[in-house]
Amino acid sequence: MANKIEGIFTPNVVPLDGAGRIDEAELRRYLNWLIERGVHGLYPNGSTGEFTRFTAEERRRIVQVACEVAGARVPVLAGAAEADARETIRACETYAGYGARAVAIVSPFYYKLSPDSVYAYFREIAVNSPIDVTLYNIPMFASPLDVPTIRRLMEFPRVVGIKDSSGDLAFLMRVIAVVRATRQDFSVLSGWEAVLVPALIAGADGGTNASSGVVPELTRKVYDLTRAGRLEEAMRLQYKLLELFDTMLYSADFPEGFKAAVALRGFKLGAGRQPRTEGQQIDTAALQRVLKCILSEHGYVDPPSEGCPARTGVPERDRVAQITQSVIEELRKRGAL
Amino acid sequence: MANKIEGIFTPNVVPLDGAGRIDEAELRRYLNWLIERGVHGLYPNGSTGEFTRFTAEERRRIVQVACEVAGARVPVLAGAAEADARETIRACETYAGYGARAVAIVSPFYYKLSPDSVYAYFREIAVNSPIDVTLYNIPMFASPLDVPTIRRLMEFPRVVGIKDSSGDLAFLMRVIAVVRATRQDFSVLSGWEAVLVPALIAGADGGTNASSGVVPELTRKVYDLTRAGRLEEAMRLQYKLLELFDTMLYSADFPEGFKAAVALRGFKLGAGRQPRTEGQQIDTAALQRVLKCILSEHGYVDPPSEGCPARTGVPERDRVAQITQSVIEELRKRGAL
Amino acid sequence: MANKIEGIFTPNVVPLDGAGRIDEAELRRYLNWLIERGVHGLYPNGSTGEFTRFTAEERRRIVQVACEVAGARVPVLAGAAEADARETIRACETYAGYGARAVAIVSPFYYKLSPDSVYAYFREIAVNSPIDVTLYNIPMFASPLDVPTIRRLMEFPRVVGIKDSSGDLAFLMRVIAVVRATRQDFSVLSGWEAVLVPALIAGADGGTNASSGVVPELTRKVYDLTRAGRLEEAMRLQYKLLELFDTMLYSADFPEGFKAAVALRGFKLGAGRQPRTEGQQIDTAALQRVLKCILSEHGYVDPPSEGCPARTGVPERDRVAQITQSVIEELRKRGAL
Amino acid sequence: MANKIEGIFTPNVVPLDGAGRIDEAELRRYLNWLIERGVHGLYPNGSTGEFTRFTAEERRRIVQVACEVAGARVPVLAGAAEADARETIRACETYAGYGARAVAIVSPFYYKLSPDSVYAYFREIAVNSPIDVTLYNIPMFASPLDVPTIRRLMEFPRVVGIKDSSGDLAFLMRVIAVVRATRQDFSVLSGWEAVLVPALIAGADGGTNASSGVVPELTRKVYDLTRAGRLEEAMRLQYKLLELFDTMLYSADFPEGFKAAVALRGFKLGAGRQPRTEGQQIDTAALQRVLKCILSEHGYVDPPSEGCPARTGVPERDRVAQITQSVIEELRKRGAL
Repeated sequence: MANKIEGIFTPNVVPLDGAGRIDEAELRRYLNWLIERGVHGLYPNGSTGEFTRFTAEERRRIVQVACEVAGARVPVLAGAAEADARETIRACETYAGYGARAVAIVSPFYYKLSPDSVYAYFREIAVNSPIDVTLYNIPMFASPLDVPTIRRLMEFPRVVGIKDSSGDLAFLMRVIAVVRATRQDFSVLSGWEAVLVPALIAGADGGTNASSGVVPELTRKVYDLTRAGRLEEAMRLQYKLLELFDTMLYSADFPEGFKAAVALRGFKLGAGRQPRTEGQQIDTAALQRVLKCILSEHGYVDPPSEGCPARTGVPERDRVAQITQSVIEELRKRGAL
Repeated sequence: MANKIEGIFTPNVVPLDGAGRIDEAELRRYLNWLIERGVHGLYPNGSTGEFTRFTAEERRRIVQVACEVAGARVPVLAGAAEADARETIRACETYAGYGARAVAIVSPFYYKLSPDSVYAYFREIAVNSPIDVTLYNIPMFASPLDVPTIRRLMEFPRVVGIKDSSGDLAFLMRVIAVVRATRQDFSVLSGWEAVLVPALIAGADGGTNASSGVVPELTRKVYDLTRAGRLEEAMRLQYKLLELFDTMLYSADFPEGFKAAVALRGFKLGAGRQPRTEGQQIDTAALQRVLKCILSEHGYVDPPSEGCPARTGVPERDRVAQITQSVIEELRKRGAL
Repeated sequence: MANKIEGIFTPNVVPLDGAGRIDEAELRRYLNWLIERGVHGLYPNGSTGEFTRFTAEERRRIVQVACEVAGARVPVLAGAAEADARETIRACETYAGYGARAVAIVSPFYYKLSPDSVYAYFREIAVNSPIDVTLYNIPMFASPLDVPTIRRLMEFPRVVGIKDSSGDLAFLMRVIAVVRATRQDFSVLSGWEAVLVPALIAGADGGTNASSGVVPELTRKVYDLTRAGRLEEAMRLQYKLLELFDTMLYSADFPEGFKAAVALRGFKLGAGRQPRTEGQQIDTAALQRVLKCILSEHGYVDPPSEGCPARTGVPERDRVAQITQSVIEELRKRGAL
Repeated sequence: MANKIEGIFTPNVVPLDGAGRIDEAELRRYLNWLIERGVHGLYPNGSTGEFTRFTAEERRRIVQVACEVAGARVPVLAGAAEADARETIRACETYAGYGARAVAIVSPFYYKLSPDSVYAYFREIAVNSPIDVTLYNIPMFASPLDVPTIRRLMEFPRVVGIKDSSGDLAFLMRVIAVVRATRQDFSVLSGWEAVLVPALIAGADGGTNASSGVVPELTRKVYDLTRAGRLEEAMRLQYKLLELFDTMLYSADFPEGFKAAVALRGFKLGAGRQPRTEGQQIDTAALQRVLKCILSEHGYVDPPSEGCPARTGVPERDRVAQITQSVIEELRKRGAL
């Protein structure tokens, strides 16, 4: 039997070139960088990876590149959701061939489906997939997977885990309670790093966290400290991670904030598939100054030239303070102050 | 300048063969039947047409078939949403070549985008599309289009209309108020036939109504009566349409109820792309008995063998009453009663 | 049997004096003004009347004053919701003694109750009230009343109507469908004047509309034109009403916008029970300038000194334009421009 | 300066006599029992205590009784929300006189208020209350308190804490982050015992947990184990608490499930203020059999006569299994099996 899926899996963003195509060289460099910084696995075609904004062919290529870069170093959890169950099963077959450890399949989206329909969809895949399947629950974007449905789906051996991005720790714990009562080999991963330490303490096996694509070192450290029982240190870093996560998540349409931060780590991501207004581009620049402050505290990047005002714990406030400081700095430079 | 888009456009369901492929012969027969029964236009790749469950190639083929069947008889409004703005623009180009009158583009889905992002997406398409564009607002499934964003998008000549499936008549009226203040040629279509007559009275130019794929005769009559100022008759039929709509919409995951009704009109739709449980298949059979009762009142189909109990105006109650009657009939047949 | 409840019932705001107590003289003057301008009935202790912000004693006094002012001229529909069913029944008894035509009872709020609990609550009241009861559905504030529950409650003769403030015209029509199938004497009132004309066309018996406390003349005219079958004129005024309604509803926390407009009609309402920040007070002043523009079009008030810029149909935009104009006017006055 | 508010505060249910009046003797017996079993404080007039279903006079009496029973043994956190800010301030004055440690004031409900209005409301109370104030955030029932508003309210020395019943651990952590950056004396209590251990680990000072009114011993033990750093044991009990909490919360309209459980601990609560249908009463009896199973595991009550089937971790499933077992037992007793 394959190993249980555990640890931090990174849902990677996808760099684009000037023509809007996947920049494979930069993608490889980025994925390699992630592995070198300690993430336990790769998770191409996640929500962070904007899987819906690529064509079916591009999604295949992204997984192929991830499997090649990973090699034998780390397992790949490949996002495999396609137009319908049949196309998804075909993607499962392809990704098995690429050497992925398992696939992650988001619950059907666009239509809001009943639990019975969600069950029927995953059942179809579970009995036909040649590769292990993890369920992906993200109720803010897709039809919710409720606990009774998850329990029914656990009856299929091919279904080996769930990634929950509900953000609801009690929900995650309800899933863990069912797992313990029925299938010890089933893996529960949290997609909500705002509460990663609590999730691990509650029994989660790991996380698929967008932040780990920005600060793989920090996310890994949080994981290791928790596993080692060094809770106080872990919680201290958890609060750092929470601030960073909130800043990236709530300052721009997801996943733009995360991409703005990955760029600060030295990767060229290009213009993005989702068009942006001029105002949004200015907002992103402002966001990056705040992110520089947060990231520079950990030594990952240099602080912005205007310096970093003390933060208050309220990201909205802090963003405004940072912008103000930056404007003052600019005026000073121009001799107006 | 092309004519304003007006009247009833039917978002067609797509028949599948035994292998799950598009059954083109049946699709042609169905589209032709719709045109012959008086719908003003075709609307392939709508939500009713399960556009997200087909591949990009299949979506193109569906539009091509619709354009061929329509010929010069009725205009085609082609659903053109693809993975991202660039792919969508390519679909626009293709559909222009097929002879579609315009495309309908649903607001970005999966991710919940801010008004600015929704604007940027449609702006990109508006300035690049070689074919007229209608906005498609369906907030229960996709990022909402709010009134200020719609107004900003009206500044692009290529944007010639909006289809609103919010179900909120006041919202539709707010859009109409903006249209009247700015662009008389802009078309406002209601996608919520529960309030089709009120929408037309309020100034809507037509509807894109799933029910018109089931009872094109009735929907057309409702439209004509309203346009002729015969309001009392129109409202009487509107209430019939409401009951039918509610029964199809709330008895199964959308659009299964509508497909169950189209099947009663004599079309073979096949098993569907979204898998169903055994329980759901039984539910559909029960639903079809109620639908037979409703449709038989208009003479479109024969009533079910067990007869039709009086309805109460509460579909849930009526469905149970119908099932009870059907069970009693079955027991009687078997001599148990 | 008592007459069916029909026409426009006004949910009145409650003037306060400098000490925050009910200003009975101003309340009487206001209620009398409403009756003289043609509203069909009074509706004290509605949501517009901020019933939750008064004590049980004050609520009784408000109804008593309304009954005294109304006399035999118009019926009073008295909001009677109290802490629990027993207290509510006591209020019913009191209001019967005051001569109210019926009471309106909002579905239980704070706790979100299941349909069964909502049913049990109203059943308790229906079998014990000495006065006719109308159900009050306002799902944005209180536990929703669904159609099956409404149907079950129609079985009690004491329940003679429903006021629906859901804003969902299709929902109102579903209720009307049940009424027609079961109880012709049951009254259906719309609490959402954004769609008053469509509601009346669909068969509603009237409305309980906050706007009728601001522009009783206009609301009454909309009602009369619709009843007279003069639909085009009615719809023209409906759009005026929609703009006014939206401006009052969405520019401040409900019901502050409506109170700002009532004040413009010449009534002293005092500071209000809900405290406001300094910023909110400035916002209200800005709102009043826009309201002056809208109301002055009907000749109800004088336009603001700075004049009225052309409106766009998007209230947010228009408010900003008005504020800009007002600032420019102010600067001009001070000689700065 | 008064001590920081810490530990488990129990929001007590209120026993009623046969006439529906507060049963003061039983209330005293219950409150005393809670204190003897180790809760750190009493919290009368919480949501669990159905404060909205009592009159203003009754609410005062409930607090008075709680203060008398508590005496010097434990502090009382008195729910003080009344019709408006002025009435609430009066209640604050009264409760100060009764000897309460502080008041807890729920954010304004019924109307959904903006952050500014929520701020203005609490500011008015903060500057006028003679007793310490804790904010009460329960977004499922009342206007939400967001982090920036909480931060602004922290500037008032009278505001000494917050009770958060959002159920969102990340939100609680955001509040804790602000507290640490600004006011160390500010108390953060979690009202969501589903995640009590994680909340404590994250830095919460305690909880106001309905479950502590059912199993004060267990809740206290969970608290003590966590504080002692015995995390594994704490989490084991946390999962027990989660199952009990879910069963009480989701099997009936809140707080009926909690009351059904308190009754099993030997207290006569009476019929309740909210009327119930016959079906609901049967459901409660069924629920109590499941609760007996859960509570009997801890030795708090005897198991039901029909025994307890193995549980699956899915409460819905377990409830049905229990009912089935109970029906079988009944049939067996009657000789039918």
